[in-house]
Parts: sequence; C-alpha cells; structure tokens
Amino acid sequence: MSATIIDGKAIAAGLRAQAAEDAARFAAERGRKAGLAVVLVGNDPASEVYVASKVKLTRETGMESFGHRLPAETSEADLLSLVARLNADESVDGILVQLPLPGHIDSGRIIEAIDPRKDVDGLHPENAGRLMNGLQGLVPCTPLGSMILVESAVPDISGLNAVVLGRSVLVGKPVGQLLLAANATVTMAHSRTADLPALCRNADILVAAVGRPEMVRGDWIKPGAVVIDVGINRLAPEPGREKGRLVGDVAFAEAVDVAGAITPVPGGVGPMTIACLLKNTLTAARRRAGG
Amino acid sequence: MSATIIDGKAIAAGLRAQAAEDAARFAAERGRKAGLAVVLVGNDPASEVYVASKVKLTRETGMESFGHRLPAETSEADLLSLVARLNADESVDGILVQLPLPGHIDSGRIIEAIDPRKDVDGLHPENAGRLMNGLQGLVPCTPLGSMILVESAVPDISGLNAVVLGRSVLVGKPVGQLLLAANATVTMAHSRTADLPALCRNADILVAAVGRPEMVRGDWIKPGAVVIDVGINRLAPEPGREKGRLVGDVAFAEAVDVAGAITPVPGGVGPMTIACLLKNTLTAARRRAGG
Repeated sequence: MSATIIDGKAIAAGLRAQAAEDAARFAAERGRKAGLAVVLVGNDPASEVYVASKVKLTRETGMESFGHRLPAETSEADLLSLVARLNADESVDGILVQLPLPGHIDSGRIIEAIDPRKDVDGLHPENAGRLMNGLQGLVPCTPLGSMILVESAVPDISGLNAVVLGRSVLVGKPVGQLLLAANATVTMAHSRTADLPALCRNADILVAAVGRPEMVRGDWIKPGAVVIDVGINRLAPEPGREKGRLVGDVAFAEAVDVAGAITPVPGGVGPMTIACLLKNTLTAARRRAGG
Repeated sequence: MSATIIDGKAIAAGLRAQAAEDAARFAAERGRKAGLAVVLVGNDPASEVYVASKVKLTRETGMESFGHRLPAETSEADLLSLVARLNADESVDGILVQLPLPGHIDSGRIIEAIDPRKDVDGLHPENAGRLMNGLQGLVPCTPLGSMILVESAVPDISGLNAVVLGRSVLVGKPVGQLLLAANATVTMAHSRTADLPALCRNADILVAAVGRPEMVRGDWIKPGAVVIDVGINRLAPEPGREKGRLVGDVAFAEAVDVAGAITPVPGGVGPMTIACLLKNTLTAARRRAGG
C-alpha cells in the first residue's frame, strides 16, 4: 500500500465545524438562525434515513431545520404550492426536496420551482448554468465535496489532466465544470468512450462516478494519481452474511498500490455530501442577507 | 490537399432556406410573422455591420425585425426597461442584445433580464444550465452552428474523441456540452493545458475556439480528423495592402493535407452563426406558441 488515504470523514468533520462557527456568527449578527427546509414525500426507507441524518446534522450545526413530511399520494400541485410557500418564507434559507419523488410527480418541475438562491442542492438549471458560465451560484453537494477532496490532495491542479468517468447531471457534469474552473484539462468519459483504461492511465486526477462496482482496476491508474471514488455500490451478500459489502467504482485494494492519493468507500466522498449541504445552506443564508 | 472542405456557406444557406419555409408556415398558422428584436446600444462600427446583416436576413427569411437603436449613453436602467417591454411583447419571439455593451452597463445583468424563452443567443445562465442538464432550451448560435458542421462531416460521433480548444462561455463550453450530448468523449483544453499538440493529435474531432491566428499546426492534427475552426483573426496587413488577411485558429494550408474534413475561414463557421440565430428565433416562436 502506497497511496495516501484521503480521509473524507475527517475533512467533512472539519467542514461541519466551520459551518457551526459560521452558523453561530450568522445567528448572532442576524438575530435568527439560518434555516434549511427538507421536504420528504412518501416513505422510501433509504430516503427516511438520509433525511433523518440531514435534520440531525442541521440542528447540531446550530441551524433551524424545517421538516415537511407529505404522504406518497401528494399531488404535484400541492408539492408546488409547498415549494412556493418555502420560497416566500424569510426564515428558510435553503430548500431540499429529497429525491426520488413518487412517479406521478415531475421532479424537474419541482426542482425548477425552487428559488435558485435557496436551491442548496444546486440542481436548478440556473445554478448549473451559473456554474458553467463562471457566475456565483450554488454548486451541487457531491461535486463540491469531491472537489474539496481533490484540493486536499493537490492544492493547485492547474494544467493537470483530469478524467471524469460518468456524465450525470448530479455528479459527473458539475465535477467536470469545477475541475475546468480550477484550470485542469478535463475529459468527460462515459459508457461510449473507446478504451477507458488507456484514457484513465493518462489522468493525474481521476473521478469515478458511474455506479459500477470496482469497474476501475489498478492497472487503469496512473502512478501517483489522485483518485476520487464517488460510487457507493452494495455487493451481493457473502454466504452467511445478511448484507453485502459497500464498494466504490474503483477496485480499492488494487488502486491503493498505484495511486498517490485515494478516497475509501465508505468514508471518502460520502460524508462530504451532507457537510457541503450545510455549507451551501450557510452560503445561501449569507447571500440572501446581503453579505 | 486531401481534406473535404466543409462548406459552411452552403450549409448555412440550406439552414436559412429551411428557416424561410418554417417562417412561412408559422405565419400561415399563427396569423402573424415570427419576430426578432435586435437591440444596439451606441455605434460601434463592427456591431453596426453585424446588426444590419441580422436585420436584413431576418426580413429575407420572412420574419419581423424589430430594431432598437439606443445612444451610447443609455443607462442600464433604461436598457433593462426596454428588455422588460420586449419580454412582455407578444409579437417578439426572440431578443438579441448586441454585445459588447458600453462599459457602464453590466452585460450579465442585461442578459439575465431577458426571458430565457426569448433568449435566442442562448446566453442566459438558465439556457446554459438547460444545455448542460439535457433539458430543452435555446443553444448559443456559434456552438450550434459548429455542431451542425461536425454532423455534416460525421453523422454519428458516438465514441469519438473530441477536443475543444478554448473554454469560453460563448463557444468552447457549450460546444463541449453539445459534443458530450452526442456521446463523444470530450476533452476541454485551454491555455493551461500541458502539451496541446499531443492532445490534439488524439482528436477525431477538433474544435478550435481560442482566437489565436493559426495556432493549430498541421502536425497537431490526427490524419482524417474533422477540424472545426471557430477563430476569425485578422492578420497585420501585408505591404501595400490596406487590410490584413482573415485567418482562423488553424493553419489551414498545413491542416488541409492531414485532416479528413475541415472548415475554411472565412466561409466555415462564420455564416452558420446568423443562420442559427434565425433557426433559434423560429424555435422560440414555435415553443411560445405551444408547438
């Protein structure tokens, strides 16, 4: 084993501590706590877990958490009017609608109804465009967290070759824009890419966000590269076990011998997502308050 | 000379003919012509020429052209209220504010004031985000025209390596998103990129949009590649001449021996920009009319 393990858990804890300081200062200066509204429609068990964790960390950070639990059969119109109320509510700085939504609701329509200045998930097209055009906006949490991890390993990535595997709206594309804004030469690769291994071997920074367990092998990695593994995949359980192991998109045991720095799964990008949600909420709160 | 010369002039003429058909059908079905408002502030000579050409082609295509000429000292507030009036005007389908604007006006603020559905230049951040997120929107004219030229040479670019030189908001970034949406593997390169020649030599599709005369040499080009030259640079005049030659970002005389297909300058991407403006105006008109 040669690579530095990028400790996402510790870095996320540092971000949360910073957010708690910022939250305290905001509350002292403004006479109210920064507030995050989380909307959960239905009772998907995984979503319940995520939302509970967001609510808990929001409160621990010293912010107001506004929970909105709606039944699975909530109409799109009712959800839209809740979003409109939250847009207008001065005590709400950030709005997060937990995805996925039930099938009868058009997620795109809901996301586009959120005031872009309160869109702490960074999913509104206006925020995507602001990121692409180099304007101030809110950046999606997982890409922002991934970028912070890259910079923890290489403070200046100017001129380095970055390869992003996966071109999702949630992760791959915004990560590509963040790397480009930091002056990397960025290649967006995906399922149609010819000779992925050769392409990856040229990457000083490799971000894997495809959702395919251990797809990236050790011999795909350039010696010394920074590897950010966004994938969280659960393998089939081994005999006698109830749950399978969690693995990333990178074959960690192989990659760790070649890379210069690498994120583990779990404990890499995962904890960064919520930490960046708290950070985004405070960013939104400060901007809305005009500072 | 071995490369096919991509005849932008002819392809643009075909687009304009299609736009004229669409404009006639729109007028017949809706009882009014599609309308494009062009706003010119001040009297920059180059802008005057561009605007005159846009007005002429808009009318020739069978659309209404609404010209708004304002003095150079127009205030930002006055320009914003003109934009608001054009947003509200049902006879206006597209709004184009000719850039650059005088220094006392914040161009970004003006662009963001345009209704994204009338933003036929595709410069509003919401349209950039819609392009990035794969949603219906309006695509900037030069990138759209460049993409049409790529597809004229290679109908299916899925899996090909595309390299975009230059990461401007106006050209490089949106071209990159269009190529990615068409399933190319896309690398965004720029002034900080290490070893540009080697990177370009790997490109099946090379789009040069950096504004540096003849920077891309013949030996940067992969044999058989499709080369789209977005640059329009005027060289210093030769002795006894009043004006210098127009050249692209690619050393055409060298590249033409290596490439499979290449755009000339002038007569390549240039004529596509206005043709795509007409196309976008009709797209906006149809969508606003609900079809």
